[in-house]
Amino acid sequence: MSSWSLSSRPRPGRTARLTTTRIERSRAERRVDEVVVEEPLEIRLRAGSDVRTVAVTLRTPGHDFELAAGFLFSEGVLASREEIRAIRYCDDVPGEQRYNVVTVELERPSLPELPGLERHFFTTTACGVCGKAGLDTLARRGLAPVQGDIRIAADLLATLPRRLGRAQPLFARTGGLHAAALFGRAGELVQLREDVGRHNALDKLLGWALLEERLPLGEHVLLLSGRASFELLQKAATAGIPFVAAISAPTNLAVELAEAYGITLVGFLREERWNVYSHPERLELP
Amino acid sequence: MSSWSLSSRPRPGRTARLTTTRIERSRAERRVDEVVVEEPLEIRLRAGSDVRTVAVTLRTPGHDFELAAGFLFSEGVLASREEIRAIRYCDDVPGEQRYNVVTVELERPSLPELPGLERHFFTTTACGVCGKAGLDTLARRGLAPVQGDIRIAADLLATLPRRLGRAQPLFARTGGLHAAALFGRAGELVQLREDVGRHNALDKLLGWALLEERLPLGEHVLLLSGRASFELLQKAATAGIPFVAAISAPTNLAVELAEAYGITLVGFLREERWNVYSHPERLELP
Repeated sequence: MSSWSLSSRPRPGRTARLTTTRIERSRAERRVDEVVVEEPLEIRLRAGSDVRTVAVTLRTPGHDFELAAGFLFSEGVLASREEIRAIRYCDDVPGEQRYNVVTVELERPSLPELPGLERHFFTTTACGVCGKAGLDTLARRGLAPVQGDIRIAADLLATLPRRLGRAQPLFARTGGLHAAALFGRAGELVQLREDVGRHNALDKLLGWALLEERLPLGEHVLLLSGRASFELLQKAATAGIPFVAAISAPTNLAVELAEAYGITLVGFLREERWNVYSHPERLELP
Repeated sequence: MSSWSLSSRPRPGRTARLTTTRIERSRAERRVDEVVVEEPLEIRLRAGSDVRTVAVTLRTPGHDFELAAGFLFSEGVLASREEIRAIRYCDDVPGEQRYNVVTVELERPSLPELPGLERHFFTTTACGVCGKAGLDTLARRGLAPVQGDIRIAADLLATLPRRLGRAQPLFARTGGLHAAALFGRAGELVQLREDVGRHNALDKLLGWALLEERLPLGEHVLLLSGRASFELLQKAATAGIPFVAAISAPTNLAVELAEAYGITLVGFLREERWNVYSHPERLELP
């Protein structure tokens, strides 16, 4: 990537203050409260003179360039930072709204086919939408099983939710954010991203890894603050993450994908007790 | 609506059993666990000889016809049951996959414009994606502020999460589901729908109301098991629901929409303490 384009104008905040009525033991009291901000982000892809809007997502402002890059990466549109010429907020949009439109400009002369995005607006009349087909789509994309050889002590894994909680200042203030965090093999927090949307939080994290040229993430644990769904596991597999732990429940399709792509999947991660749904060989028990 | 088409073949389940490794105090034990099923559902719209796929969503099987009808209703594609000729699983899809494709056939001779769906795959180069624009979209759709005159006692409202919990058998078994529930003014549970996706749970609930000809829902409270986002409030406004309570946090855009459309929005609903973000006049305090 040859350039970034960051503006010095103020950008929208990640939280907003407003006056609410707090009800406590049936008594009402007016007070100032802080809520998480949700605003649309339009992601545009440019190559040569072609421009196409590829997604509009409701996201929490902040790390927008990482979100755009991570979305394109995890959807299979681009594979490395080298393919990106520039990422910028749009110049043709007035006022505050310019920060709700991000254009990713590619080095290539024209736009690629965008097969990975069809899932969002499927137009064939064939079925092709079953779980098996979802796995087939990943195979067609050329995605290989994850290679990471990380091993994690069970005792260490159990401490990660506490470490994540300490590092989530926005969640502490608003209670409205999902988090995706990368930990190293010693249990150290490597990076954390938060968003009102689970997919966005992970896309921001993967966009960070892409722009920092840290992919694939074969020596890391991904911790998800919520549930583990098929789409989140698909993104993790694309980034080569060998170990995914979720604080809440997994779905059947997430387990199937983890099993097929060699990913260790942990769910309901708590200090005392949790479940391993696939590839338990990466866990070290005392 | 003149006909339904239900098959007698077995349909996919809502939960799946699998063998997991339970780690407890660093000891591993193999056990059978139950996880929530997540499978794609392709929603097709048919009118005359035109067929178009309008969405593919990862959902928990069950209440698929309600999900399809509710999605089309809450996206502004149809307004009443009268516009629907039939809803059926697809005959041209083999085996189990037939239950992952639902066609909604309209009475009209050709497909309508589908402006409400553009949000999912936006193609104009104008901005138009800010929160203000989101509210403008609702106004363009002809959506009027909600008229319901329901009033709810604060003490009664505080009991709804407990009532919801008692009625959520799938959540109790898998921990992986969102719920959307309708309560009447005496606090009685009117209907409940669950899904791995928050939007799907609400679309199933609204699809039920549409097919039962209960719209608008001007005398009900909608309880959401998770957070209150812009898109969920948009669906509630479309159904004329005057009172929305969420067990977790709202976003700024959700509060703005509730304020503008006359909806009482409660967040962080607990027995002892909670917040009212808009139109507190519908709450009765002792």
